[in-house]
Parts: sequence; structure tokens; C-alpha cells
Amino acid sequence: MKNAVGREIPDFLLTEGREVYQGKNYMDGKYIQKASPRTRRYEKPLESKLTDSIAQALRDCGARDGMTFSFHHHLRDGDYVVNMVMREAIEELGLTDLTIAATSLGSAHDPIAAYIEQGKVTGIQTSGIRGRMGEVVSAGKLKTPAIIRSHGGRPRAIEAGEVHIDIAFIAAPTSDCVGNCRGVGGKSDCGSMGYAMIDAKYADHVVVVTDCLVDFPNMPASVEAIDVDAVVVVDSIGNPKKIASAAARISRNPRDLMMAENVAKVIASTPWFRDGFSFQTGVGGPSLAANLFLEQYMERRGIKMGWAIGGICGPMVELLKKGMVGKIIDVQDFDLEAVNSIHRTPGHCEMSASQYANPANKGAFVGKLDFVVLAALEIDTGFNVNVLTGSDGVLRGAPGGHPDTAAGSRVCIIVTPLTRGRMATVCEHVVTVTTPGDCVDVLVTDYGIAVNPLRQDLIECLDSAGIPHVSIESLKEKACSLVGRPDDLEWEDQVVAVLEARDGSILDVVRKIRPYSPEE
Amino acid sequence: MKNAVGREIPDFLLTEGREVYQGKNYMDGKYIQKASPRTRRYEKPLESKLTDSIAQALRDCGARDGMTFSFHHHLRDGDYVVNMVMREAIEELGLTDLTIAATSLGSAHDPIAAYIEQGKVTGIQTSGIRGRMGEVVSAGKLKTPAIIRSHGGRPRAIEAGEVHIDIAFIAAPTSDCVGNCRGVGGKSDCGSMGYAMIDAKYADHVVVVTDCLVDFPNMPASVEAIDVDAVVVVDSIGNPKKIASAAARISRNPRDLMMAENVAKVIASTPWFRDGFSFQTGVGGPSLAANLFLEQYMERRGIKMGWAIGGICGPMVELLKKGMVGKIIDVQDFDLEAVNSIHRTPGHCEMSASQYANPANKGAFVGKLDFVVLAALEIDTGFNVNVLTGSDGVLRGAPGGHPDTAAGSRVCIIVTPLTRGRMATVCEHVVTVTTPGDCVDVLVTDYGIAVNPLRQDLIECLDSAGIPHVSIESLKEKACSLVGRPDDLEWEDQVVAVLEARDGSILDVVRKIRPYSPEE
Repeated sequence: MKNAVGREIPDFLLTEGREVYQGKNYMDGKYIQKASPRTRRYEKPLESKLTDSIAQALRDCGARDGMTFSFHHHLRDGDYVVNMVMREAIEELGLTDLTIAATSLGSAHDPIAAYIEQGKVTGIQTSGIRGRMGEVVSAGKLKTPAIIRSHGGRPRAIEAGEVHIDIAFIAAPTSDCVGNCRGVGGKSDCGSMGYAMIDAKYADHVVVVTDCLVDFPNMPASVEAIDVDAVVVVDSIGNPKKIASAAARISRNPRDLMMAENVAKVIASTPWFRDGFSFQTGVGGPSLAANLFLEQYMERRGIKMGWAIGGICGPMVELLKKGMVGKIIDVQDFDLEAVNSIHRTPGHCEMSASQYANPANKGAFVGKLDFVVLAALEIDTGFNVNVLTGSDGVLRGAPGGHPDTAAGSRVCIIVTPLTRGRMATVCEHVVTVTTPGDCVDVLVTDYGIAVNPLRQDLIECLDSAGIPHVSIESLKEKACSLVGRPDDLEWEDQVVAVLEARDGSILDVVRKIRPYSPEE
Repeated sequence: MKNAVGREIPDFLLTEGREVYQGKNYMDGKYIQKASPRTRRYEKPLESKLTDSIAQALRDCGARDGMTFSFHHHLRDGDYVVNMVMREAIEELGLTDLTIAATSLGSAHDPIAAYIEQGKVTGIQTSGIRGRMGEVVSAGKLKTPAIIRSHGGRPRAIEAGEVHIDIAFIAAPTSDCVGNCRGVGGKSDCGSMGYAMIDAKYADHVVVVTDCLVDFPNMPASVEAIDVDAVVVVDSIGNPKKIASAAARISRNPRDLMMAENVAKVIASTPWFRDGFSFQTGVGGPSLAANLFLEQYMERRGIKMGWAIGGICGPMVELLKKGMVGKIIDVQDFDLEAVNSIHRTPGHCEMSASQYANPANKGAFVGKLDFVVLAALEIDTGFNVNVLTGSDGVLRGAPGGHPDTAAGSRVCIIVTPLTRGRMATVCEHVVTVTTPGDCVDVLVTDYGIAVNPLRQDLIECLDSAGIPHVSIESLKEKACSLVGRPDDLEWEDQVVAVLEARDGSILDVVRKIRPYSPEE
């Protein structure tokens, strides 16, 4: 069945009421019966939940074949916890047929690829998938299609009972002996623990893995002891150098700066650029540089930003400290400056993934956003964006909060160079639709700006401000003229990944890529 | 069927797996399938949830006959919200057969008594019940028995699905336009909103009632917008003078001071009075005065309190500010000093009722308490305590956190004068058992100290420290010799209230009192 972004969704996926994507806000006003965990009553006072090893914690939580384990990715490419837990589960306990439900996975998790090839890990649910794992999944080696969700789609799916977490693993920079966890105060600080919060509330069992045990009570806690079964102390939960990098540097590349200035111009041309406006930006070069130009416009107009959300990095914290933004509400930290600011700088506070972006609760932060600036691997003439699959069709990205902020914001601006290396970024049809075109409003490239025809109001804003813009088709033609038109990718039938829209409907599928055989 | 505290529980109450009380920690290790709400998906971005009136919010949330509305009591005797909501529901919308599930009710809610008499309100679930409402319920005028729960038993019952909240009403000192609520920053501040948190998470619909609308986002929020359907702004949610009183004054009554000093002596005689110990005390005269003497012992021994929990008042905040206590974890504030300290004094933070005292989660704070000092209306020779019914058998009290802290703490000390007016406090059988004797360790009165024979370890502590103590029977005899033995109360068959133990089993029932007829 074809969905609203023109993708053919195989019927075998459309079971148990699962629908194809029907457009933005299709589920609005419907009701959801929330799911719930089955949990142990700890009535007898307990001195401590310290457990000798991850293997012992797994046994205590009744770990068995076929279970779903959840993880969060605040430790980013420095994470050790996913690999530690899966190694103990598979090699110590001999478990098989396991599903990993992670908020994101990266190249830190390359060792999991072998467990997929061995058939020990048979399910992957995640936002990001990269490195070796992306390759083996793309090669069709995972027994069930990977399920790719946005950061808002994941808490929605958990609350709807579509993902049932048997054991949630919390990678905790600090924990006390009964499992109150915080992302600050240890040797592997990650700042916000926003993605872990919902896992802890909906999992049957919760195991905290920490490398810094602190005095009880470790309050206020991001993950609460009332949800935790076991606390395991390990030497290290991650590589601090890869968890939080030094402050992200704003690009000095003239092409990036030009695009960033145009992003700020577009924003400043709209009626929502007024005192108290709200903003989110990614950490890519041109997105981050937009902060700089925006600050200049704010100063010129004498206005301040009301609040910012998202994955947070240094330049936004700087604006907060200067009083140019009122509050930062933070689901994840990208650099040391942000890690060291949360809970310390007044107005810089934490939120859960559900508060951030869940489209099925009673109103996430993304729904109050005025502007979001996002990157793209590809964008097509229907304004559909791909941030998941590479030009070779292999999984190597993450929708993250992209579809959520795009859908929720008043103005979603994609900023990307027209070409990368020898590949066109603006194309006829993206390889995979990760953010549907009805959520994307403006495209800023180094060869011009295009506005989604659905947004005549924005076209008028740009015209009034004298900002030139062109059709997205003309940008696509320009890209083609620069790098030529690539051959179509060739796919086999096997579906290796299902791309869920944030509302739970199916946006796209990724199929097994046909191995390159030059003889044919 | 007779339960573990010797009370006869009528069979008609023992349905749907409900058991009689079998002793402390009987439910430990059992599993619970948590309940969950049915909630509306707000996918389409929403500017605001402001609603013109409580009546309109009720309509928007589908209010109808037979529903259960929940309330929390942080506004204490100053609360206007319960009466406002029930008046609109009953008089504007014409609803009937309503159940009020409140964290506590007091004399502020006298107008509800009339709705009970009219048969409009047919169910009451609460911790406290006093004033006119206590009288009409005791007189058998409520259609179903009132259900009385502790502050920990309530979140347990909600999580177990034994109370399903159709609409939760949040009395919010501040809220933004989508329902992020805080207990500080307005004109009717209550400080902690700990009791409201679980209601907002488990109710199908949530209505915020506030008298101070603040800019979005009102973060960090105690009740989160993601759970809120409507925000109603009213002139006033309560009488600030009755919400938080000026700092509670420590008693100067020599009898209270003598008892308080003995409480501190008992505490200091145990091995758990060491650096980092934990403590909770009530706000009664002698309980509060115990703080003072405890501080002297702490100074003498050169130790500090690690943390304190509970309903919080000024003297504990003073200890925090002096560095004599490490952290205060706060579910409710009793005076202005506490209200003005939470979220402001470093180390003074908020917790939910579940974190505080729920016996069916994975470990509430009460289970880590070293010492709790509590009051009593009556205590019997089985160490069972009554804090609910007066000597006339009428409902006029509240178990509150009494049974939870008693069960969870290492040492539970009851402090009470031997007699009050012409009534004995220490007696053969309390009118109603609200805290079972197996949870109570020491009784301190103005005529001597008694230790529960179950605690031979504590008897040894007192003996080693040279603290005299007597049997509780001798204290009862002394009380009898002072005020005589009252006639037994006379009851009718009708059960007017069920006293649930914190684990959900039945601890006692309250029957209709037989009207006094001097002719007989």
C-alpha cells in the first residue's frame, strides 16, 4: 500500500492495526490506552541494591531468551554499557534471540554486529544505526527488520506498548546504592539523562550501571530508585573523551557561514522572530553558525530568545549566560560546556524524551517551537528528507529528533550544501524518507533558498524581506548539472529496516541492497 | 475474618483478592502489574490549553456521573479548589454519584458534607477526614464506605488500579499556558507538590487550576504539561494564611520538652545515631522539640544528619542552612520557611508521594529512614496506634505518612502525653488501628518510656544507656488510675470507613457510631 509520501509499504507489515503514514497530525485527538510494566514490590526496607556483576543483575531480573533490553545513548560514541551488557547476557548467560531497544546506536557498538551475524541478537529498535551494525543490518543479517524511530516516536511506542522493555539498562555517571541516578558529579558525566527516564518508568526491571557510586540520596534524581532493581558498579561506563567533546567550534568555512547567514535572514523575515521566540538547532557546521547570525539579528531588533531545547551544546549555553535566552530545556548534551552547565546555570534544566518530542502525549516541547534548523543527507523535490541511509543505501544515520522538531515547529529550515563530494543533496526522490515533506518548510543551500509551496505565508515573508528564493526543482536541476545523475540503487526484496513515522505509522522501508557485481 | 492486629474484618469487604492485614512486609517480593491511564493524543501543536471555567474544563474532559475526581492537599486548610470543582460539577453540570479521591481532606471542605447528604458525592477516598465531612461519614450518610489510606498506600492503590482517577485536579501556585506547574513563584505558594505528581501520571484527564499564570516554560515542572488537558485560571486557589503558617514554634511547655529530651536520649542510645543518620519528625509540639535536643546530641558527638524527609517545616530548614543536615527531601511543606526554601536552598528538593512512601515500588525513602518521631491520638498495649478516630468514635484525623514511616524506619518512636484532658492516651484497645503495633518500637510519655518487646535490641540499647523504661501495660494502668476507664463506645453494624493498610490489605473498619440516647 502506498503512503502519503508515495512509498510502497508491504502488506505483511500492516498487521495489528499498524497503518501507513497518512500525513502530519493524522493521529491528533485519538486516545491511547497506555502500557505499563510488571514490577517487583520492595516492601521490606533494603539497605542497598548493589549487585556484584552485570551477569548477576541479569539473573536477578530473570533474564531469558527472547527478551528486550533497552539502552540510552547519552554516552554517545564513548559508550561501553551496551557492549558490556550484551557480552554478559550472551557469553556468560548464554542467552539468544535478544532485542536491543536503544535510543541510538553508533560505531561504539561495532561488536554487536557479530552477535547479529551469530543470530544471538535478532531485533534492533533504535533511532541511529551506524558502523558495522549498519552494514550487517543492511546486508540482511538481522532476523527481523530493524525498527527505526525518532526520539519522540520511541517514547510513544513504549507508552503504547509496542515496545515492551523487559530490562532497562541505565548508564549512570553517578548513582547511589539504591539507584537514584544523575548525569553529573562523576568521572563520565553526560549531563542530561532525558532519554533514559521513560525507559526506567516502563521497563519491568531496571539495572543501573555506574562507575561512580555516591552517598544516598543522589537527589534530585534523573532516574529514580523507586524504579530500579539493581545497581552494578563497573570500572568505567564510557570513554569521557568521546562522551562530551570540547565545545563545538562554529564553522569558519565561508560556504557554511553564507548559508548560516541566510538561515538567520529567513528566520528574521517571519512574524515569529519576536521577543520570547523559541529555537532549536543541530550541531552541524552551518546549523551551529546560525546561532551567531541570529544573535546579531536579536541585538539589532532588541529582542531575546525565550527558550531553546534539544541536544544542547556550548554556543547555546553561552547565549543563556549572556542573558540572550531565557531557558534551556535539555534532553541531551553534546559538549563539555553543556554537561557542565545543566543543573548549574540557572534556567538550564533537564527534560525527558517524552517531554521533548512524544507526539502522543498531551503536548511535547517540539509543538511549541517557533524555529528549528536541521541538516539533511538528502532532500527531494517533495521536501522529504533522508537522514538515515547513505547514497549507497546502507544504514548510517539517525532520524533523532529531526522528524519531531520538523513536525512540531512553526518553521522548519533545512540547511545543506547542494552537493557533497560527488553526490547531489537535492534530488528527485530521497533513498529513504525519514522526515516527511509536509513537515519541512524552507531549504537553504549554497546555491539558493527554496520554500515549500505548502507555506505561502513564508513565501510572502521572504518576498517582503527581499530574500530571493527559487523552486526546489531548480535546485535539483542545478545539483544534477554539477555532479550528474547517479545510477539508481538496486535492491532485493528483503526488508531490512522499517522507518516508523513519529505517530507509529509506517513512513518507509529500507530493503537489502543488491551486492555490487560488476560482471552483470 | 480476624486480622493480624485482632480486628474482625467483614467478609463482604474481602472480594477481588482483597486480604486482611497479615503483618509488616507480607507483600514483599510479590509482583504488581501496574495500571495506566487512557489519554488523549495532542499531536497537533497547541498554542495554549487555557479554558474559560472549571465547568468548561469538566465538559472538555468528558465529565459524567459516577466519575472519580482526584485532589491533593498541599494548600491544606486554605484550599479552595476541592469546593470550587465539586460545586461546578454538581451545580453547573448536574453530575451525581461522584467519588472524591483526595490525598487528604480537612475542615476547609465542610461544604462537601452537604453533597454527601444529598447523595451527589457517594465515595470518599482520602488520608485525612475531619470537620463536617467526618461527622456525616461517621453518621453513615456516605453511600459507600470511605476508604482511608496512608500517603504511601494511596500511590500504591493508584498504581495497582484500585483507584482509577478519571480527572485529576491540580491546585497549582504557578502554571504556564499548557500546564507545567510549580509550587513556587505565585501568590498561593505551597512549595512541594509531591502528592500531586502521581495523580497527574495516572489520571485519564488532568485539569490545572491556578491563580498565577506564568510564561512558558514553567520549568522544572512538578506536574508536567505532557499530562495536562486543560488550564483554568481562577482568582484564588486558596487562602495563603492557611496554606503556610509562619514558622512552627517549638513548644515551651515543660512536659513537652521533657518528652522531647527523652526522645532524643532514646535516639542517641542506638547504634544508628551516627554520622549521616536519617530522620523524620512530625510537627506536633513534642515531636518538633525533639529537633532541638537532637541537635545538642549531634554537636556533642560531632556528627551530622545525612538527610531528612517528610512534611517539612522551619526547624529542619534551619538545620540544613546550618550544615547540620545534608539534604532535605520534601513531599509537603508546613510553613513559610519551608515553602521559601524548597528549590532555593541547595540540598532542599522535592519528591513524589511514591518516592516518599509507596510500599509497592522498588524502595521508597521511608525504607531508608533510621528514626521517625510520631504522635498518636491513642496507643494500645499491642503498640497499635490510632490517629484517625476521636475518643467518641468520630472520624477526625489522618493516617498520613504515619503507617509508612513507622513500617519503613529502623526505630519508630511515638511521643504522646499519657492523658489528654480526661481521656487516656495509652489504652487496652485503640478505637481504630491506623498503624499496626508491629511497626511501632518505642513509646515516650510524660510518665515513662515503654519499648515494644519485639525490639529486644532496643531494650538493650536503653539499658546500656541507663534510660529507665517500663512495660506499656504499666503505662496503661497509670493512665487508668489518672482518668478512670471510659465506657465502651457503642456501634451499629454499618461500616462507614475502611482503613486500608499501606500494602492494600484491610487493617480495620470504622462503624457507624450509635447515637447517644440517655433514656436507655
